[in-house]
Amino acid sequence: MPKPLILVTNDDGITAPGLRSLVRYMKEIGDVVVVAPDSPQSGMGHAITIDNTLYSKKMVVDLENGALEEYSCSGTPADCVKLGLQVLLKRKPDICVSGINHGSNSSINVIYSGTMSAAIEAGIEGIPAIGFSLCDYSWEADFNAAKDSIQKIVREAITHGMPQGVVLNVNIPKLDKKKLKGIKVCRQARANWKEKFDKRTNPSGKEYYWLTGEFELLDNGEDTDEWALAQGHISVVPTQFDLTAHHAIQIINNWKLHA
Amino acid sequence: MPKPLILVTNDDGITAPGLRSLVRYMKEIGDVVVVAPDSPQSGMGHAITIDNTLYSKKMVVDLENGALEEYSCSGTPADCVKLGLQVLLKRKPDICVSGINHGSNSSINVIYSGTMSAAIEAGIEGIPAIGFSLCDYSWEADFNAAKDSIQKIVREAITHGMPQGVVLNVNIPKLDKKKLKGIKVCRQARANWKEKFDKRTNPSGKEYYWLTGEFELLDNGEDTDEWALAQGHISVVPTQFDLTAHHAIQIINNWKLHA
Repeated sequence: MPKPLILVTNDDGITAPGLRSLVRYMKEIGDVVVVAPDSPQSGMGHAITIDNTLYSKKMVVDLENGALEEYSCSGTPADCVKLGLQVLLKRKPDICVSGINHGSNSSINVIYSGTMSAAIEAGIEGIPAIGFSLCDYSWEADFNAAKDSIQKIVREAITHGMPQGVVLNVNIPKLDKKKLKGIKVCRQARANWKEKFDKRTNPSGKEYYWLTGEFELLDNGEDTDEWALAQGHISVVPTQFDLTAHHAIQIINNWKLHA
Repeated sequence: MPKPLILVTNDDGITAPGLRSLVRYMKEIGDVVVVAPDSPQSGMGHAITIDNTLYSKKMVVDLENGALEEYSCSGTPADCVKLGLQVLLKRKPDICVSGINHGSNSSINVIYSGTMSAAIEAGIEGIPAIGFSLCDYSWEADFNAAKDSIQKIVREAITHGMPQGVVLNVNIPKLDKKKLKGIKVCRQARANWKEKFDKRTNPSGKEYYWLTGEFELLDNGEDTDEWALAQGHISVVPTQFDLTAHHAIQIINNWKLHA
């Protein structure tokens, strides 16, 4: 049986330590092709490049266990997946993994996440896909504590395939391997960001803002990703791109829209 | 009773004819404040500006029925809503409307849509919100055919409020007023884009790509937005930002993740 082909991408850029770790873990499972942004794309959501050109650069990187095909791309994470699937890869990958993100993409963060947008783009195109994020924003974060769990999730996804219209959002708490508990399948916690805008004045005297904010959890459920992470578990949220609020169709139908 | 306060934004930029039309329609319903990008932001998905500064410029524009407060913003549609709600507006708006987009945001396009990301951002912050899009990409598109329906939807949303966690994705077919049928509440059709990358060479001899593609409908349902639009109806899809695929939790729990 041929080895599975694994497309690896991310939103922190092709040189990010989180991606380099994920590549190492995936090389133990299959053949790896990397298509990743040439610069950081955090917070890009599901942006795509419509009104601009896309550049791509091929590299071959030597790893201990064989050569690795890599492409950097000037676009967003979603662009990387589109370009990879349509142009760069010689065959359809068996799975697409995105990350490991430097920082959490749990609960409402999934909406803003470039890591997850890459996974969702692959899912839309019918490829099983998983986004991985470590709840540690440091560039020197230790990804190895979760290595076994990451490989287990990827192997199971390759074995079982993915339910139609679903991709996985995996978040890993910042814990030593000894303290890291098992995997929990969860729902997305209800939360938002309480924004603060830091108002400053530039050297020319013009006012500008920096977006900052505090995460605000609005959900006490014990079946959420936030709860699982707080307990030391790795959270796995099955995530869909059919955004229809089916339960609300009847409610809106009761409005006077048809008069 | 004071007039409702309506926050108007979009992704085509503050000068776009679609936004100017929406502002006119909303002035007949309430007090309007505009916070919109200073340049086109189509395809920005739910991008936010994390690693860069945000600028905002206040303008006062005269309309036939009174002065109007407007702010242009250097960020994405989601940034505009965050900045508007936290910094620029004097009180919480009663509703946020985004658009009218020059082009469709039906079915899978909702994922890539800056128009809808603005509405979703407002929804996350607890403001009833609606994205409006006309299925006509032309800058000279005629928005007036749908004026009555747009006003009806906004008035009903103000009257009833929005179900929690839900925003509306409204798409309008490109039809004369006579041919335009009524409003249909729908689900998001299953679809994707069959990408093509147009490979070219720049004046320096370097290869680059343009992203193009064809929309591919994968859904024969007669309860979808695509079906409604094809029949000449205005489609209204209740859209949620809890992306959990609840039906898939049990499926993934049957994988061997806990061994």
